[in-house]
Formats: sequence, C-alpha cells, structure tokens
Amino acid sequence: MYDLDPALEAVAALRREGARVHCITNTVAQNFTANVLLACGAQPSMTVSGEEAAFFTARADALLVNLGTLDADRRAGIAASLAEARGRGISVLLDPVKADLSPPRLALAKEILSNGGVCLKANRAEADILADIPVPLRAVTGRIDALSDDAGRRAAIANGDSAMDRTVATGCALGALMAALMSRSATPFDGALAALLWFGVAGEVAAAGSAGPGSFAVRFLDALSEVSIDTLRHEARIS
Amino acid sequence: MYDLDPALEAVAALRREGARVHCITNTVAQNFTANVLLACGAQPSMTVSGEEAAFFTARADALLVNLGTLDADRRAGIAASLAEARGRGISVLLDPVKADLSPPRLALAKEILSNGGVCLKANRAEADILADIPVPLRAVTGRIDALSDDAGRRAAIANGDSAMDRTVATGCALGALMAALMSRSATPFDGALAALLWFGVAGEVAAAGSAGPGSFAVRFLDALSEVSIDTLRHEARIS
Amino acid sequence: MYDLDPALEAVAALRREGARVHCITNTVAQNFTANVLLACGAQPSMTVSGEEAAFFTARADALLVNLGTLDADRRAGIAASLAEARGRGISVLLDPVKADLSPPRLALAKEILSNGGVCLKANRAEADILADIPVPLRAVTGRIDALSDDAGRRAAIANGDSAMDRTVATGCALGALMAALMSRSATPFDGALAALLWFGVAGEVAAAGSAGPGSFAVRFLDALSEVSIDTLRHEARIS
Repeated sequence: MYDLDPALEAVAALRREGARVHCITNTVAQNFTANVLLACGAQPSMTVSGEEAAFFTARADALLVNLGTLDADRRAGIAASLAEARGRGISVLLDPVKADLSPPRLALAKEILSNGGVCLKANRAEADILADIPVPLRAVTGRIDALSDDAGRRAAIANGDSAMDRTVATGCALGALMAALMSRSATPFDGALAALLWFGVAGEVAAAGSAGPGSFAVRFLDALSEVSIDTLRHEARIS
Repeated sequence: MYDLDPALEAVAALRREGARVHCITNTVAQNFTANVLLACGAQPSMTVSGEEAAFFTARADALLVNLGTLDADRRAGIAASLAEARGRGISVLLDPVKADLSPPRLALAKEILSNGGVCLKANRAEADILADIPVPLRAVTGRIDALSDDAGRRAAIANGDSAMDRTVATGCALGALMAALMSRSATPFDGALAALLWFGVAGEVAAAGSAGPGSFAVRFLDALSEVSIDTLRHEARIS
Repeated sequence: MYDLDPALEAVAALRREGARVHCITNTVAQNFTANVLLACGAQPSMTVSGEEAAFFTARADALLVNLGTLDADRRAGIAASLAEARGRGISVLLDPVKADLSPPRLALAKEILSNGGVCLKANRAEADILADIPVPLRAVTGRIDALSDDAGRRAAIANGDSAMDRTVATGCALGALMAALMSRSATPFDGALAALLWFGVAGEVAAAGSAGPGSFAVRFLDALSEVSIDTLRHEARIS
C-alpha cells in the first residue's frame, strides 16, 4: 500500500537541510507552531499582513495558509502569498480551521481550493464540507488519520495520543510541519505521511510519563526534536 | 455565608460535559487561555473579528470579553458577539484589563456593563473605576478575591500563590474559566466561586516544588487538569 | 575595556524596583516576551493599537519597538508611542526583525532610527543594512554579541547557548529585557550589557541538562528568575 522510506528520508532531509516555511496562521497558534518548526529543523516566518506577507513567501520553501482568527489583514496576506507561491511553484497547504462553523471562512476555503494546486489538511467536519473540490492531497486528521492523493495513493496512520487534543494548536502546528516536509520530499504524499507519523510518534513518546497537559506540551517539543528515524520506523502503525 | 457544594458540582459538570467558550481576548493571553480551558475540560474558540466572531458565539455556552490589546477589529467582534450572546441568553463575563489606564478602553467597559446582564471580573483598580455600575456578579481579584452578586451573596477566597503573578495571562485565563463554569452552574456566583477556588488551589499545588516561573506555568496546567474535587474541598480557604 | 559592576547593579535594580516596559512587538513573541519580563522583575504592557498604545507608553519606564508581524495598526501604535516616549525622555529600543527581507519594514526602521535617540538591537544581516545610520547604542547579536555606543565603548559578549536558537522569540524577548535594563542603568550601554549577560548565562544554565527545546524554554524562564548576581559575574565571558 505504501512505502515508508521516502517519508523517513523527508524527515532526515528536513533535519539536515532545514526548510523555510511561511505561515499565515492564527494568533493562538503562532508561537507553538514556530516552536514546532524549530524543533523539527525548519525555519518559520509568521508575518500575515497584506503589505508584507508576500516578501516572506518569496523566500520560503513552503507556504501554510491556516484560516484560524481570520481577519481582513490575513485575507490580504493570504491572497498576496498564494499568488507569490503559485508563481514560484512552492508547496502550499490549506488548513481550513473550523470553516464548517463560519460561512465567510468556508467561502474563502472553497475559493482557495478551487484555484487548484493547494493541498488540504482538515478534520472530519471540515473535510466533509469541502469534499467536492478535488485537491492534489487530502489529509483528514482524527483518531486515525486518512491520507490520499490524486495519484490514488492512500494511507491510514494510527499513531498519536489523546493528550494531543488537550494542547491547543497541535493540529495547526501539524499543518506547518506538513508544509515543511512536503518541500523536502518527492511528492506531497510522502511529506504529509512523514508529518503525520512524526507528530503521532512524538505524541506517544511525550504522553508516556507526562503529568498533565502542561508537561505534555513541553515533552512533545522535546520528542519532536529528539525522536530518531529508527523509532519512527519501529513505532509506525500505518496501513 | 456560602455553600461550596454547587461550586464543586460545577467543576465536576465542566469536566464531565465540557462547555464551549468563545473568547474575545488579547493576543498575549490567547494561547495560555485556550490551554487552561482545555486542561479544565472546556472547548475554546478565539476568533475576534467583526466578520466572524458572532458565528462562534452562536455555538458557544459562554462568552468572555477581555479588553486587552483592544483594536478596531476586536471592537467590532465584541459588539457582534455581545448582541449574539444577549439574543441567546448565554453567560457573558467582562474582563476590563487595564481599563484604568486607557480612556477609550474605560469608555467601552462602561458601555458594555451599562447595557446590563454582563458579569465583571477585575482587579482592584479596574473594579474601583467601574464601581458605580450595577452588575449581576462582581469578582475582584487580589491576594484575597472578593466575590459578590446582586442577590447579596458574598465570599472571600484566600487560595492562590504569588507565583501566579509572575506568569502572564493567568488573570485573563481565569476569566475564561469563570465564564465556562458560569455556564455549568445554577447561578453565576457558584460558577465564579468554583473558578476562583480551582485556580487558587491549582496555583498552590503548582507552586509547591516549582523551580521558577517557567516550571510553575507547566505545573499549573497539570494541576488544573489533575486536581481532584476532594482536594478542592479540602484546601478551600473561603469565608 | 568595560566595567561589569554597573551592569550587575542594573540587574539588581530591576529585580528590586521593577520597570514598566511597553512593548509593541509581534504576535508570535508577545507571550514569551511578557513572561521573560515578569521572570526578570519587570512589568510588561503589550497593547499595539494606534488608539491606545500611547496611553501605556505614557506610564512606562521604557519602550520596545519590535517590527515583527508589522501591520497598519502597529504602524500607528509605533508612531504614537515614539512621540510619547520622546516627549517623556524614556529609553527606546528598536528591534528591526527581518527588516532585511521586507522593503516596507526596512523603510520604517530607517525612518525610526533617523529621527535620532533610538537604540538598536539587531542580528548581523539587519545591522548591516542599517549600518549607515548613527545610533546612541548598537547591539549586534550572534554567536558573540557585539555592543558599542556613541561614547566609543565596546564589548563582546560570548555567553549563550545554541539551544536559544531553537526557541522562538528569544531574540525578541532579549530586546524587551534590554529596554527594561536601560531604564535602570546610568547609560544604555550598561543596561544592554546587563541584558546580554543575563540572557546568555541563563541560556547556558537552562541548556545544561535540558531534554530538548521544550524543556529548555521552561528552564530558561526559571534560570532568568533564579540566577544570582554572583553567577552572572562568575560566568561572564566578555571582552
């Protein structure tokens, strides 16, 4: 069904070479997302404004568009960054956070995806409401993450721990890591698979022995940084 | 003077049933506030914009309006969310952060309270400058927290630790927890009392053995999540 | 070349007397910056809007202007706060985050410095692009931090640990601490030297025995709070 080697090579490549990820993401998740990227070897930039975002996207290896805390300035920054990313041919990932709850956010998510070429990471409710738009890659997160691409590849990733649901912005940070790894792999599928596996295994490592959600979040960043490729391979529960 | 059972029942209810709290709060406190809510069993949403905030308030069990880092978009989001909350009859808590230092912020705080039905959490300076506006519930935080409601009930809560003053946003997060618990109790008074007690005892648990403000913040989230109802009852210092 | 005593006295003065620092800084760094200031004995305020920032600057002992996540509201808040700070004669520090990557940000940085009286903290790339504008104090951070002032004093600070580069916003928080200490020392040079030393030694203390970037950040806040003046003196590697 799937080959784990290209995904693990993407992890190694990110740690070895880094990757600049421009993140237009919500104010709740910005700090944690940046720390996750740094822990994984990537270099974040986080400016959202219409005036400036494209200058950072112009230097990035990948672009994350996360629709949380959407506002007018983010809308302008998203439009400018998407145009820049399209012109440069870099990987773009959309995380339509809670688009199922807000009509204007849903409309923007549909518009972004309809222009083509943008990969999607979403939870079940968000993915369902966007299901009729074809995308190059679709990652639907949940107890078991479901990954599929336009070449017909599929994988189900069972790694992870429920403690991740009690730390805010883990899902948002996952999107950023996915974008980073997509820029360091042959196909978006390999990069996305790598991110889901890395996140899930680090979550399991961190949850073991943590004393609650505060210590979990600390241990999670440590685990992202320290977990070995061998552990990722050994602990993978993918079908 | 007071009965602790309804407050402790609110804690149990929040852990058992959850509560969706829409928070219009400052950018400094958003992440920590969301993590506090998650640690306590509540579900945060954090969008502030005038375009979108009301869609989230429409699904929430309670609304927090925190005036920190006030800006034009927050003003619009606050107005839209207050209208939505009023229409739905959900609990609303105002935290007029530093309104004593900024005239336009003070004017907004007065306007919000004057429309009626909004509970108030404030420190002494903020409460004093807003003292002439009647509110359904008033919580004045400090070394000893003073709680009173429009039914004449009063309580003074002596729990807490000075370490809480060296972690930013503890006060802001307390407001969010207060809103959450008010939606899970028979009266705002019971919910607010529960929040002050839970916060204070968790602060004491976390401070014992912490090595500084960094480890305190981590242990505080752990303690919020793990402290038992029995411990809350046993450690309560309320008069 | 330099005298360490005035710098160490600034550390003691900040812990003893506090200092109110108004920070116009980016949304990624706000929370961590506030926690760093609190850990060091200072009192942060963080409002950025043009409508309100000057009211907080009017009460502050020092002003930090950090250009990360620059937007229209920050521009207005910066202008109003700089005018207020100039009128009151308080210390102002500019951190032109990534101004080398964004033309409009660079133009703003040049405009701020050209008006005179504003101290500069920058990394090498940012400092180089702003090198032709005279400033009262220039701190260029890197593996070895280079400090110089308009009285011809110079110091090179070799303290610090590479772990600091894997926690987001350490550099931004350093700027805030520098501003705080400049308000508690006879000259900006002494205050800036104190901040670089304090940060560097705390980074070394925190890195020893940390299990990764998550635990490093926690231990770093603990170390800032707990490190003694004697340790700062003993561990200083300054030339």
